[in-house]
Amino acid sequence: MNQEYIKADNWSIIEEGFDQETVKSSESLFSLGNGAMGQRANFEERYSGPTFQGSYIAGVYYPDKTRVGWWKNGYPEYFAKVLNAPNWIGIDVLVNKEPLDLFTCTSVDDFRRELNMKEGWYKRSFKATLPNTIRIQVEITRFLSLELDEIGAIDYAISPLDQDAEITFIPYLDSGITNEDSNWDDKFWNTTSVDSKGDRAYIQAHTMKTDFKTCTFMGAELHLDGKKVNIDPEVSQKETWIGHAYTQGVKQGERLTLIKFGGYTVSRNHKADTLVDAADMVLDKAFELGFEALFQSQKKAWAAIWHMSDITIEGDVKAQQGIRFNIFHLNQTYLGTDSRLNIGPKGFTGEKYGGSTYWDTEAYCIPFYMATKNQEVARNLLKYRYDHLEKAIENAQKLGFEKGAALYPMVTMNGEECHNEWEITFEEIHRNGAIAFAIFNYYRFTGDYSYIPEMGLEVLIGIARFWYQRANYSEAKEKYVILGVTGPNEYENNVNNNWYTNYLAKWCIDYTVEQLHKVKDGYPEDYQRIKGHTQLTTMETDKWEEVAKNMYFPYSEKYGVYLQQDGFLDKELIPVEQLDKLERPINQKWSWDRILRSPYIKQADVLQGFYFFEDHFTLEELEKHFDFYESFTVHESSLSPCVHSIQAAKLDRMDQAYRFYLRTSRLDLDDYNKEVEEGLHITSMAGTWMSIVEGFGGLRVIDDKLSFTPRIPKEWESYSFKINFRNRVIKVTVSEGETKFKLEGNEQMSIRYKGKRLELNPNEEISA
Amino acid sequence: MNQEYIKADNWSIIEEGFDQETVKSSESLFSLGNGAMGQRANFEERYSGPTFQGSYIAGVYYPDKTRVGWWKNGYPEYFAKVLNAPNWIGIDVLVNKEPLDLFTCTSVDDFRRELNMKEGWYKRSFKATLPNTIRIQVEITRFLSLELDEIGAIDYAISPLDQDAEITFIPYLDSGITNEDSNWDDKFWNTTSVDSKGDRAYIQAHTMKTDFKTCTFMGAELHLDGKKVNIDPEVSQKETWIGHAYTQGVKQGERLTLIKFGGYTVSRNHKADTLVDAADMVLDKAFELGFEALFQSQKKAWAAIWHMSDITIEGDVKAQQGIRFNIFHLNQTYLGTDSRLNIGPKGFTGEKYGGSTYWDTEAYCIPFYMATKNQEVARNLLKYRYDHLEKAIENAQKLGFEKGAALYPMVTMNGEECHNEWEITFEEIHRNGAIAFAIFNYYRFTGDYSYIPEMGLEVLIGIARFWYQRANYSEAKEKYVILGVTGPNEYENNVNNNWYTNYLAKWCIDYTVEQLHKVKDGYPEDYQRIKGHTQLTTMETDKWEEVAKNMYFPYSEKYGVYLQQDGFLDKELIPVEQLDKLERPINQKWSWDRILRSPYIKQADVLQGFYFFEDHFTLEELEKHFDFYESFTVHESSLSPCVHSIQAAKLDRMDQAYRFYLRTSRLDLDDYNKEVEEGLHITSMAGTWMSIVEGFGGLRVIDDKLSFTPRIPKEWESYSFKINFRNRVIKVTVSEGETKFKLEGNEQMSIRYKGKRLELNPNEEISA
Repeated sequence: MNQEYIKADNWSIIEEGFDQETVKSSESLFSLGNGAMGQRANFEERYSGPTFQGSYIAGVYYPDKTRVGWWKNGYPEYFAKVLNAPNWIGIDVLVNKEPLDLFTCTSVDDFRRELNMKEGWYKRSFKATLPNTIRIQVEITRFLSLELDEIGAIDYAISPLDQDAEITFIPYLDSGITNEDSNWDDKFWNTTSVDSKGDRAYIQAHTMKTDFKTCTFMGAELHLDGKKVNIDPEVSQKETWIGHAYTQGVKQGERLTLIKFGGYTVSRNHKADTLVDAADMVLDKAFELGFEALFQSQKKAWAAIWHMSDITIEGDVKAQQGIRFNIFHLNQTYLGTDSRLNIGPKGFTGEKYGGSTYWDTEAYCIPFYMATKNQEVARNLLKYRYDHLEKAIENAQKLGFEKGAALYPMVTMNGEECHNEWEITFEEIHRNGAIAFAIFNYYRFTGDYSYIPEMGLEVLIGIARFWYQRANYSEAKEKYVILGVTGPNEYENNVNNNWYTNYLAKWCIDYTVEQLHKVKDGYPEDYQRIKGHTQLTTMETDKWEEVAKNMYFPYSEKYGVYLQQDGFLDKELIPVEQLDKLERPINQKWSWDRILRSPYIKQADVLQGFYFFEDHFTLEELEKHFDFYESFTVHESSLSPCVHSIQAAKLDRMDQAYRFYLRTSRLDLDDYNKEVEEGLHITSMAGTWMSIVEGFGGLRVIDDKLSFTPRIPKEWESYSFKINFRNRVIKVTVSEGETKFKLEGNEQMSIRYKGKRLELNPNEEISA
Repeated sequence: MNQEYIKADNWSIIEEGFDQETVKSSESLFSLGNGAMGQRANFEERYSGPTFQGSYIAGVYYPDKTRVGWWKNGYPEYFAKVLNAPNWIGIDVLVNKEPLDLFTCTSVDDFRRELNMKEGWYKRSFKATLPNTIRIQVEITRFLSLELDEIGAIDYAISPLDQDAEITFIPYLDSGITNEDSNWDDKFWNTTSVDSKGDRAYIQAHTMKTDFKTCTFMGAELHLDGKKVNIDPEVSQKETWIGHAYTQGVKQGERLTLIKFGGYTVSRNHKADTLVDAADMVLDKAFELGFEALFQSQKKAWAAIWHMSDITIEGDVKAQQGIRFNIFHLNQTYLGTDSRLNIGPKGFTGEKYGGSTYWDTEAYCIPFYMATKNQEVARNLLKYRYDHLEKAIENAQKLGFEKGAALYPMVTMNGEECHNEWEITFEEIHRNGAIAFAIFNYYRFTGDYSYIPEMGLEVLIGIARFWYQRANYSEAKEKYVILGVTGPNEYENNVNNNWYTNYLAKWCIDYTVEQLHKVKDGYPEDYQRIKGHTQLTTMETDKWEEVAKNMYFPYSEKYGVYLQQDGFLDKELIPVEQLDKLERPINQKWSWDRILRSPYIKQADVLQGFYFFEDHFTLEELEKHFDFYESFTVHESSLSPCVHSIQAAKLDRMDQAYRFYLRTSRLDLDDYNKEVEEGLHITSMAGTWMSIVEGFGGLRVIDDKLSFTPRIPKEWESYSFKINFRNRVIKVTVSEGETKFKLEGNEQMSIRYKGKRLELNPNEEISA
């Protein structure tokens, strides 16, 4: 652990004391989001020290020109970048005309940040002595409203401590911002108007190329000791900046407060020529309610979220804080109300990994959203891929595939591929399988079959067609093989017959054919529409089945395990534990060729297959594969430990399971990878949730019933979580030797507990 | 063939008629070089149409920042760029104050270019009507002096055709030039002084970062109908430009000539503060001799080159022109007098493939230079690698190798790696083997063993250490394997057990051990020095030998061939001839993943091994491998057809051999790859020479004797070439059914002809 400065607390993330060195890390950790917009924990007032500014608008991106060494056919022209949006939070502060800047203050005392996860707000307070020797006390509260999701609210309060002072607040908007992650230092925003009206201001700007039109807006109010002060602001304005200066004499001990509402209206949600009107409407609402009422509604909205998604852990504050931090950020990032959006790997906390959607969504995030939201949310995530099917077919065509074969992109914003390393873009094709698996998983969990005839089957057909064409017959093996792929373990590139990929390919074909029959029988009208649309024939599906039936799977008789890929046993099979600590992480210490020819596994690969298709294998098989592959796994992806944690728990190795859990749950809080200043690992946070619910709780869905095989780490007294299963909510509380189930609502429900059937009555707690 | 505008001619490259579309191609084809500097065939006078300006100074480069998608450990920080140097050829021409610019002339007639390869000069002539209706006749002769290799000479002559005219010549220097191939549009040159003195001018400039200091200089003289005109030039000068204007009234039919000498003095060859003095010295010499005498010495120098290196072909003008074009450009690029220089793949004809030295030098170029120059030239090429040994050891260290293991760079200027694609930089390690092979080949051909104890053995030890460390023991195969490589066939990346690489690795170790013994016995002092320097022990060499003895070679019983790599037979083995023509070249039509999983071979790979180690295999084995691999080879590298041509000839398939020969010899003249405007393929030109001498002529060195098994394509009446073998020169003339040998000098010599011994007497032609 590299970072111990965050205080352990059940519900809040707290930093005490001002340290310039942690500013950028804290900007990530204390980020706010409301699904529609996000904001790193940048200071409102000027800060001349090192900082990483980030304001983000969901779905607004910039297609940056790709940067490659040598161009290869099939590379995408651009790489969608999560875009730093115009700044709406800025408030310059002058005290007797001296600017407040924590980097230049002669002293900063009692500095404290709190991200209150329970209620969804962020507060910062400190006492500072300015270069002009005036001491002030400052307290700022900020939140991004869940009720009015185009608005954020700031309460910025100052008291002069030792003398009277003249205080100037200059709330401002700024569209002259830059992007840290730009490839070519291009300008991303074009500002078209800067306007002021009374206490409000507006900057209209659009992104270059993508032409997302935005109005960044603000409105402000001044209060002295709680009483509104009416001053006309002094307006100053530049090409990409507008500020409103409010100056007020403040007596020692009095408290001058600026309430600032600000945010964005965007052409994704409004007509482009009504953005200022829309901004006024939302500002009207905000001012009508006032900061306090909006703050109360924020607390209420978060209470509702926590009511369903909270996980409690007794006896381990750090573990408790970790899991809540993960659940909080998942909910800040994606609320599932807009099927055009998805879950970016950094959410609203940084720019890295341009593009919003990876296979992370299907493999790691969907279970969390299925179990803690109503099923529409997961359905929207599936619909997102259905809406991108045409683009996935075009993408496959670019690579030479035909007849409606679909290859979903490795990274995308709008369905087009945004990644451009051949070994990933062209070869990490298992992503296609995760998308099919999510369809299966969604139906398994929700019981909502309608998605398949309505949308899913066409996605499955495109995917099955891809696998059929991507495999080829090997005369030497007398089997179908899949050559030249990269598996989930990205420390192997361009390998042949990655077991996980081959297994998934076969499964996709089998599952698609099964759904074709099911839809044909049960949804004949949909079937006819789909048949017409896809021109699918039995001759074609027969050929698919031939490939699926004769797929090759590399296997070692000696070790009794499926091999990660052809040739895996040619490697020097030295277990990770024998590696010198100084050599790790290998992705920082070793050259790429050395990593590639080593046996070391970045993240679950064969074991990812055992995770998806657990019921296809015996416990003994799992154990053998776990023992074999775990010994070579370096877990240098944030997505790795959770799968191993779930499997270790299943194998009743709770110490190991707990170690993996800790690594995933406090990855960012403890900054394991020394990179948290770049942003948080949002999608892996869903893996943490899985570690508890599926790993420790042993949650599965078997034959349309929830099934639990709970275990508890010896470090914990108890833990609890809730599952929304087909609109029935069940709370599970696990302690050593006892599991309690409590069903909400009115209907009975039967579940399995350690393999046995258990009947639950509404609102009655059962101890098992 | 895409380009038919070059006239067939035995000794010259000729273009007739002015076509704006061919300007850039011709700028490449008519390039001049003298080993120390080079110049694309850019016009001296202004040209406002599309052009690719290029003036190059041998050994002067710029370390451009690398451009990559995602950084990987071990990547080099920079990529050495062949640098466009300040322009010394420029001569602005005004006719009655109207600038001459062929792009804007109302007519251009009788336009003709000739590159006279026999005598080493380039002439351009035309009649043009300027926008001001004045018609002029122009004739320009240019050459880069072999005698004074810091100087180029231009004779620029104009006659007004229909009326008297005032003609102004403004010879100039310009250091405000740009580089087409720049990654980041950086400025490469910094100009420090611009000076004029009488008829001479100087610009001193140095390259950024590498700080090569240069003085670009010129001197001029004006002649009217052959009589010197004395005018003081009008000097004009800017920050990076200086011009001298000479204005003269010229009567209709009179001929006004500007003689311009210009070029570079460089801190690589002179003290940095004496560059202007050095320029004056070489200008003094040039003006003392005068254009005509220098021109005569040029013809003499080229006659000497051709005397030794010419290949004649009777009955096939295009083939004759092709081979001379290749020999001419090889000699323009590298003369072997400076061991700091090497043979860049584009020579002095373009910027692409930054860096000068590839394994092309060792694998393709050394045989040409060994046989057509004295042995010092090849020795200098070997010394170049010896001088870079420390850098190669550092390079290997960066990738995790230890104890003096050396990995030579894929591309280099000064010994440091300049390439940055992991699959090439880190994995195309067979280059190390070619460097060892060249040492073997040099000794085999020249009989000069001294290089090995003096320098070569240390190179071999570094290379053997690398192979020993790069191989690992496979428990599964019970053999040593080499994982994760790219062979010469770059259409495969990160494969296991590339046969060529494994074979070369084993051979390198065996050969090194053999040389160790030989040096120990024959050169004990060198042996002690080397042992001290390398800390080599018998324990270490024993371990090498263990690896060499137990190296794994993939083999197919079914086909009776060594496999290009593990898993090759899993591919869909469809021969190239069954591919749709529209799919080719696959590197332009297919995505990279599709190329990788196809069986198609970019250039000789297994067959490259059969070329190097021909005597390790039977003719039957060669035939089997040739038939198997040729059917999958697409020859999309300029280095491919020559090896296949040599082997087809050996297999007595002369039609096939001739087809391959044509493809290699006129690659640039006929612009097969539609890219000649970017520059010529210099290193593959040496492969063309090999196709004739080793392929058709069947030249080998066996047991210290030259051996010939000549064949002739049915399209030719006869062909001849000369070989300088251990300071004895032998001319071989082959026609159908007859081969004539003529030995120069005074000593007898015995050779083998079709396996039989043949005695040659000096200056006596023997017919066999």
